Parts: sequence; C-alpha cells; structure tokens
Amino acid sequence: MEVEEEVKRMVEEVKELHDSAASFISSSSHQELTLRQKASSVDASLRRLHSTLASDKSLDPKLEEDLHRARCMLADGDLSSFLPSKPQGRFVRMFLGPVNVRASRKDIQLKVKEEYNSYRDKTALLFLFFPAALMILRSFYWDGCLPAFPVQLYEAWLLFLYAGLAMRENVLRANGSDIRPWWLYHHYCAMGMALVSLTWEIKGQPNCVQKQRGVHLFLQWAMMQGVAMLLQNRYQRQRLYTRIALGKAKRMDVVWGETAGVDGQLWLLCPILFILQGFQAYVGVLLLRAALTGVVAEWQVMVCGILLVVMAVGNFINTVETLMAKSRVKAKMKKSKSRAELNHTS
Amino acid sequence: MEVEEEVKRMVEEVKELHDSAASFISSSSHQELTLRQKASSVDASLRRLHSTLASDKSLDPKLEEDLHRARCMLADGDLSSFLPSKPQGRFVRMFLGPVNVRASRKDIQLKVKEEYNSYRDKTALLFLFFPAALMILRSFYWDGCLPAFPVQLYEAWLLFLYAGLAMRENVLRANGSDIRPWWLYHHYCAMGMALVSLTWEIKGQPNCVQKQRGVHLFLQWAMMQGVAMLLQNRYQRQRLYTRIALGKAKRMDVVWGETAGVDGQLWLLCPILFILQGFQAYVGVLLLRAALTGVVAEWQVMVCGILLVVMAVGNFINTVETLMAKSRVKAKMKKSKSRAELNHTS
Repeated sequence: MEVEEEVKRMVEEVKELHDSAASFISSSSHQELTLRQKASSVDASLRRLHSTLASDKSLDPKLEEDLHRARCMLADGDLSSFLPSKPQGRFVRMFLGPVNVRASRKDIQLKVKEEYNSYRDKTALLFLFFPAALMILRSFYWDGCLPAFPVQLYEAWLLFLYAGLAMRENVLRANGSDIRPWWLYHHYCAMGMALVSLTWEIKGQPNCVQKQRGVHLFLQWAMMQGVAMLLQNRYQRQRLYTRIALGKAKRMDVVWGETAGVDGQLWLLCPILFILQGFQAYVGVLLLRAALTGVVAEWQVMVCGILLVVMAVGNFINTVETLMAKSRVKAKMKKSKSRAELNHTS
Repeated sequence: MEVEEEVKRMVEEVKELHDSAASFISSSSHQELTLRQKASSVDASLRRLHSTLASDKSLDPKLEEDLHRARCMLADGDLSSFLPSKPQGRFVRMFLGPVNVRASRKDIQLKVKEEYNSYRDKTALLFLFFPAALMILRSFYWDGCLPAFPVQLYEAWLLFLYAGLAMRENVLRANGSDIRPWWLYHHYCAMGMALVSLTWEIKGQPNCVQKQRGVHLFLQWAMMQGVAMLLQNRYQRQRLYTRIALGKAKRMDVVWGETAGVDGQLWLLCPILFILQGFQAYVGVLLLRAALTGVVAEWQVMVCGILLVVMAVGNFINTVETLMAKSRVKAKMKKSKSRAELNHTS
C-alpha cells in the first residue's frame, strides 16, 4: 500500500535526521568548548602582558599598541562570544528564569545594541513630551490643578519604562557591554519611586497649587531630564561611532557613560548634567522637608525624597568618576604620544 | 627581548584563534541551516500524512501509532531545536528587545521548564499565605479595617508576580511549549488589575467594613485561588510525569491546562475551579454594581470589576474547552482500541 510505505519511509527519515542532529550537537558543542578554553587562556595571557607593560616603562610603547589591537580583536570579533560571560543579573533571572540572554553571534549582539539605542531615542522624546503635555494642560486647561488620572498614567509609564531599560541593560551587560553598574541601580531606584508614587494620592482643590508642589517640581525635573537625554543620545552616539572607527571602543559599549560626549560638546553637556543632578537633589530635599515638618504626612513623600537624593548623589559620583577616568586616559595618551615623538627624534 | 617576542606570539595566537572561531561559526551555521530546512520539510510531510490517515478510516490504526511516535521524536528529541519556532511574544520584545530567549539545547529548555514549575509552587504558597495573613491581621489586630500600606504591598507583589509569570510563559512558548494563549492574556489582565488597584485609595474609618468590602472579597478569592493552585500544581505535575512516561505529552508542555489532573482527582479539581470562577465573576459584578449605582465613584472600581468578569469568563471558557478536548481524545482512544481489537479478532 502506498500510504503504508510512505509512513515507513518517513519514520526512517525522522530517525536519520534525529541521529544527524544529535551528532551535530555533540560535535559542535565539543568544538565550542575547545574554543572557549583557548579564548579564556589567551585572554588571561593578554591581561598579564598588559600589566607587565604598564609596570615596565622602559619598553617600546609600540608594543602596547599591538597588544591593544589584539585585545580589541579578541573582544570585538567573532571570538568575543567564546569569552567567559558576566553572570546574568539577578533582575533578569527574577523575571525570566535561567534563560540565556547572551547572543551567540556578534551580529545579533549588535542588533540588540542598535535596538537599545533606538529605544533610548524614542524614550527621550516621550520623556520630554509627556511631562511637558501635563504641565501645559495644567496651566491652560486644568486651572493649575492636575487631575489624578493623567499623573498616574505617567507614573505607570515611568515604571514600565525603567523596567524595560533595566532589562535591556542587563541583557547588554550579559552580552559584554561595559555599562556602569550604577545605571542599573539607578533604574531600580527609579522603578521603586514610580511604584511608590502610584500609591500616592494626588490631592485636588482647595489649595491645589501648594499640595501639588512636589508633583509639579518632579515634572519640571523630568522635562529637563528629557532635554539632557536627547543631547546625550545625539552627541554620545556620534562620539561612539568615532571611537569605534578609531578602534578605541568596543562595539558593545553603550552611550550611557553620560560624559562620554564629543569633546567640544562636553562643555555643553557637563553643566546641564550637574544642574540636573542639583535640581534632582533639591526636589528630594524639598519632599523630605515636607515630610519631616509634617506638612504632608504620607510615607510616600519621605520615600520618594530619599530615593531622589540617593539617585542625585549616585549620578553625581558616577559623572565625576567618568570625567576623571577620561582625563586619566587623555593624560596617558599625551604622555605616550610625547614619548613616541621623543623616541622618534632621538 | 623576551616581552617583545611574547607580545608578537600572542598577537599571532589571537589571529589564529580568531580565524578558527570565524570558520567554526560559518560552518556550524551552515550545518544548522541544512538541519532546519530538513526538519521543516519532514514536519510538513508528517502533518500531511497525519491528515491523510485521519480522513481515510480504512487504513491500519497501527500506522497512526507509528506516525505518532515519529512526531514525538521530532518534537521532543534533539531535533526539536531545529523546528521553526513560534514568533517571540510582543510582551518579551517590549521589555527585552530582539533577544533570542529560545534555548538551543533540549537540556537547557528542560531546565527552564523545571525552574518554571518550582516558581509556580513557591508562588502558590505565597498566594495562599499573603492574603490569609492580611485577613487574619484584619480580624484580630486591625479591628476589621485594613491599613493601606500592607494592601498596597500585596498589590505591588501581585504586579511583580504576574509580570514574572507572563515573561516565563512567553519564554516557554518560544521554547515550544503548547501553553494556551489565554493564560498569557489572563496574566496581562491581572497585571492591569494590580496596577489599577495600586492607584485605588484604601479608605479607612468610619464605615470601614462597608468601604473595604471589595478588597475583602478580593482577598477571600485570592486565598481560594491559592488553594486551587496548590492542588493543581500537585496533581497536574503528577499527571504530566505519567503522560511523559506514556509518551503522550511533550516534555515542554506545562501544567497550566487546569483540567489536566489525574482522572480521579479531576472530580475534586473541577468543582473547585468552577466555584472559583463563579466567585471571581461575583466579586467583579459586585464591584460593577457599586460603581454603577454610585456608591463608590472611583473609576478604578469600574475597571477592576470589568477585568474580573473578563478573567472569570475567559477562565471558564478555557476550562470547558480543555475538558471537551480531553473527552474527545478519550473517545477517540476508545474507538481506535475497539477497532484494533476488532481487527485482531477478525
């Protein structure tokens, strides 16, 4: 019978395919393991050589450049997926379970990165327009008194947004990006604040302007944050492309480094960032004062105040650290350049 | 010089390793593609044969069994990772970006599954104890009037819990589990409800008992839900292991199917589930009535009422559908068994 034969043939075919799949999986995982071991040992040797060169100043600076290029090749090319990965963050594990979010191929890693950058662009626009719309409607339509629903919608959006950012940055870290851990903690704080502010009753008339002073200040800060994010995204991406082209940055690095802007534009960004952080701390202190003097009795005011101050201080420390690391690198580059010129002329 | 030579040697080594990694990636992705194409074509043929056998009753039922075994081999063995996967859910994409959450190897897929089941066990316990603690404290310590903070903590926990469940089930689906889409929609509804109830002011004295009637009913329902989840988890896992042993279930199937309990225990689970769904709809209708008659004017009451009714109706339809599918399978098995006996005796 025709059907009978076909069934038999298909059963055979499935068996064969099953066997070849099994042998492919075992051989490829064996090869992968070998590559992983070799990549780790090479990585360790490169690190050791790097510290040798750093301690012994009498050596040719050209060696350091060669070594740097080798390290870039290891970290940026196809090999990077065989390097030992950072352990996956607890945040991702909490929501996703033990799933591997590390992409096995470089092109997928870069796609994740690109998508993250475009997500940040969209986010920055909304970060500017959402609070701006609330403020404008408040002045011209709501008679200076925000109704509860739009504000709560905005808070829910913030919660969703920071959860997404925290997730994506955890994924980027697992994929080898050198994003500073502080930005992740910052997002967790921001999520906490959004959650707490959702439970915070938005009071209406009478004395609306006084009661809603905290919300009002927060919205102003959020608008400034939106402008700063847009500037950062634009300038830092520009700078990242330059650095990648010069072989100085790994392609998985992201632009959160806040102060990694193009040099000339750094003098525009830095003051804005510091003003923003000052304003954030100011809003936090105002909330804390309101809570401590008993003007507003709710615990949410206290918690939001503390979180805002913590975030402002953390942001400030990290911005300063990034600036200092930058100037160290610059001084070193200048020194090695002048030394190279010295060697050349001597 | 020694260091110089070592640097040169390392640079060479990195280059070699880079080349072998590149060739490994290209050859393995080529082989993988071939396996994928073959697996899809075999899968399509098996489906076609299956429908041929189903329509032509004159054929030997043994053929159907052979075919079934081949399909299990395709879906459950190493081959399964080469079958075309369901597109990743929008929910995961929204939070994670275009990361691949499909595990490439069966053992990792099964680990994800195991972890999901133990997460559900822990969840069910908390689902019982959290509202129970609130209810007990309310009666014996809080004089019948729940304070806002613990209830909001509980609501935030629900939001976090349902987000985690929705994430994990999306991941399971991407890994080939046949979980019903309704359970995902159910979790989205539950997330929406948790978020909305966070913005819902918990009113205190006077008339606390009357004002908090909705919260009170909801907590009662949650406790019942906890008991039902514990029963389901225990009985369904037991049944799943039996089914896997009999080769009837794929190993990635989960135990959400509600009514997939061991037969004798089904008569315990089914009434509990239907009572639970009835109670859920009742709470929803009470909330809707309160909102429509103007007893409680907040929009949150209306939205929570609608969501509860939608979830109750959806749960009911899906439980009935699962039961019907179950009885269809049973009838078919009986028929093919009696036909086999008939063939045997004739």
